[in-house]
Amino acid sequence: MNGAQRPLRIGLAGLGTVGCGVIRLLDANRALIEARAGRQLQITAVSARDRTRDRGVDLSAFAFESDMTALAERDDVDVVIEAAGGSDGPALELAGATLGAGKGLVTANKAMVAHHGLELAERAAQSGAALRFEAAVAGGIPVIKGLREGAAANSIDRIYGILNGTCNYILTRMESTGADFADALAEAQELGFAEADPSFDIEGVDAAHKLAILAAIGFGAKVDFNGVAISGITQVSAADISQAKALGFVIRLVGVADCDDPQNGTGRSALLQRVRPCLVPLDHPLANVSGPTNAVVAEGNFVGRLLFQGAGAGAGPTASAIVADLIDLARGDAGPPFSLPVAELEAMDRADPGGRTGRDYIRFTVTDRPGVLAEITAAMRDAGVSIESLIQRGRAKESGGEVLLAMVTHEGPERCVAEALALLEGSPSLTSAPLVLPILRD
Amino acid sequence: MNGAQRPLRIGLAGLGTVGCGVIRLLDANRALIEARAGRQLQITAVSARDRTRDRGVDLSAFAFESDMTALAERDDVDVVIEAAGGSDGPALELAGATLGAGKGLVTANKAMVAHHGLELAERAAQSGAALRFEAAVAGGIPVIKGLREGAAANSIDRIYGILNGTCNYILTRMESTGADFADALAEAQELGFAEADPSFDIEGVDAAHKLAILAAIGFGAKVDFNGVAISGITQVSAADISQAKALGFVIRLVGVADCDDPQNGTGRSALLQRVRPCLVPLDHPLANVSGPTNAVVAEGNFVGRLLFQGAGAGAGPTASAIVADLIDLARGDAGPPFSLPVAELEAMDRADPGGRTGRDYIRFTVTDRPGVLAEITAAMRDAGVSIESLIQRGRAKESGGEVLLAMVTHEGPERCVAEALALLEGSPSLTSAPLVLPILRD
Repeated sequence: MNGAQRPLRIGLAGLGTVGCGVIRLLDANRALIEARAGRQLQITAVSARDRTRDRGVDLSAFAFESDMTALAERDDVDVVIEAAGGSDGPALELAGATLGAGKGLVTANKAMVAHHGLELAERAAQSGAALRFEAAVAGGIPVIKGLREGAAANSIDRIYGILNGTCNYILTRMESTGADFADALAEAQELGFAEADPSFDIEGVDAAHKLAILAAIGFGAKVDFNGVAISGITQVSAADISQAKALGFVIRLVGVADCDDPQNGTGRSALLQRVRPCLVPLDHPLANVSGPTNAVVAEGNFVGRLLFQGAGAGAGPTASAIVADLIDLARGDAGPPFSLPVAELEAMDRADPGGRTGRDYIRFTVTDRPGVLAEITAAMRDAGVSIESLIQRGRAKESGGEVLLAMVTHEGPERCVAEALALLEGSPSLTSAPLVLPILRD
Repeated sequence: MNGAQRPLRIGLAGLGTVGCGVIRLLDANRALIEARAGRQLQITAVSARDRTRDRGVDLSAFAFESDMTALAERDDVDVVIEAAGGSDGPALELAGATLGAGKGLVTANKAMVAHHGLELAERAAQSGAALRFEAAVAGGIPVIKGLREGAAANSIDRIYGILNGTCNYILTRMESTGADFADALAEAQELGFAEADPSFDIEGVDAAHKLAILAAIGFGAKVDFNGVAISGITQVSAADISQAKALGFVIRLVGVADCDDPQNGTGRSALLQRVRPCLVPLDHPLANVSGPTNAVVAEGNFVGRLLFQGAGAGAGPTASAIVADLIDLARGDAGPPFSLPVAELEAMDRADPGGRTGRDYIRFTVTDRPGVLAEITAAMRDAGVSIESLIQRGRAKESGGEVLLAMVTHEGPERCVAEALALLEGSPSLTSAPLVLPILRD
């Protein structure tokens, strides 16, 4: 270890799973971390709401601040780790104060970066401080580094991936056990793969935070979380999963970001960001991603398709990503957080999805009586939707009962499917709103 | 782009597929590359054996050196890209001269780094020059960066992967078509996935180069190419692939490196590096890696299992990795090439594989007559090998003909299988030497 350099002194805000994970990791792997960093990494001060709770880690060597913003002002802190959480409030205040003081900030806070990443990057640029958030996306997987540095020579065509381990756990359990959504969610909660209030996960918001961050880095754009069209997995039923399987697909919650060619007359390219449950062909690498694993694909114009896969959450993987950022900072490597200097990040227009083409899975729940199929297929024809395959399953016991009808369309404009469903709106044949899931483009 | 910094001036040695790929990439993506690098990247001089050959790229703006070592001495060169190839000779001379002159060296030359990486890293450390070789391992996949920086906080337990696209193409074609090795190789040669002289690929030497480099980085060891035990894929037959499939596996050429716990009395841990065709369980991520794709898994003590996958070769991916290295150098990020300062790299002992336990696939070719099965199973029993499953296929038409016998063993010491085969050596029942393929440990 290079003893010539002075230690990197760290203030740690938040002593939950992630914060304590960082303390344990620095303790367990200290020798190799310091050899790779070329300096000592030394936590000097910590902050948490409750000082006295037993967390199973020894805090006696660290100063304690009950107000976490005070970490930013301490003379013995060079870098602050923000592991407290929350997109605004104290976490954002700490982040602003840290960067404002010219100190490095390392955070795992995807909500904060998705909502306020741009202003934090501006603050960092003003003071010359480093801002890093590898742990904010896909847990321990070094995908921000992979995109920002590893694929830096490429124009990125598309970024997509499985970004939420809770949803992926639920969907793959539904797949392997035939359970319906509610039961798989309850199981995930029991096992600690889902939180007591799982709404941010199952409604796709968490995946959207991560997608917005990846898109900003990949496309050199100003992070635009509000531009992400989000649908979660709560509408996916056991029947959808078995229909999809019969058609040669699995269902995964996938975040996809890509750019329109700048042929919209403005000369500016437009960004499309969507988080949706998708049908994934069985031979696609994402189809094999099961349980709480995350996986991200980046497609570059020279490198082709890169896949990064690993644990998307948990104390160990998240701490691994945070300490990787610390090692980079200790080594003096502190490029712009979003891959380009913040002044060069583009405010991209939002693309109109109606102009896109694709294939869809559409599931109808219909009354079981003559003429329903003719009504639906006529609406498809009138809207210009071409049907590739169709399954009618689970014929109701008594006539007039409910039947599931699933179809996969040929490639066509997305707006045509919407038009077909508009034609069917209000039809007494449909017992509930149809569910449309896109088929992931290879 | 930051115009304040002066350009990074590049000398490019070698104008084959890779060298021309770099020229094309810098040309196609210039604006975004320079925005990410914060400086201009400017090729000033090139070198190749033949100046006049039409390569489809415009060389008129570059100075030409017929002796590539002269690139290192030019005043208008800050960094040299070595894309000429060859583990020794002019490439090594150029590398030494470049680093000796305190200039950065970026190379795609896996053979040179595997054989001479340590001396080059020493030279780089002496002069304070940067040495980078992302393109030397797994083409465009940023796996060296992922391991060296992304997983830097972890003690690595094991590194393994599919490191040779030619072999993977051949094996997956054998799998999908039932072709035998020679036919699949001929097809790969026709399609450009295998060279006219494919021996470095099919005999596992190329994969071993890459494994030795990954192991050095992952374990902080002095690169030890000669310590890699290598077997290639030439002995794998169509019958092995179909037997493996029947048993629930695919066959892949996998390089594996791991460390023994330091319980060998010396207090030093020992490194085991092997490249072998392995049986991979169908639900393992590597089983889904087909065609010329590469994939690397790194298992860290906090991050768990990370998978990096992508194109393992080709002009575009290789150029992508080279230019990623250039961007890092342009941004001033030049950590030690093998993740630790060269003086701290450990000369690790070589582990004794006989002390390991594992499961094996063993294929016998035997004469079809009574008593053969009893003879083989008795040898297994006497050597302490426990058989998990056994398939006898392809009964010969006339008695006394050849029959294939394939078995999978239970977990046991590797030396026992060797002992069993020694007991059977010289037996007239065996018509050729048995083939032993390990089963990849999950």
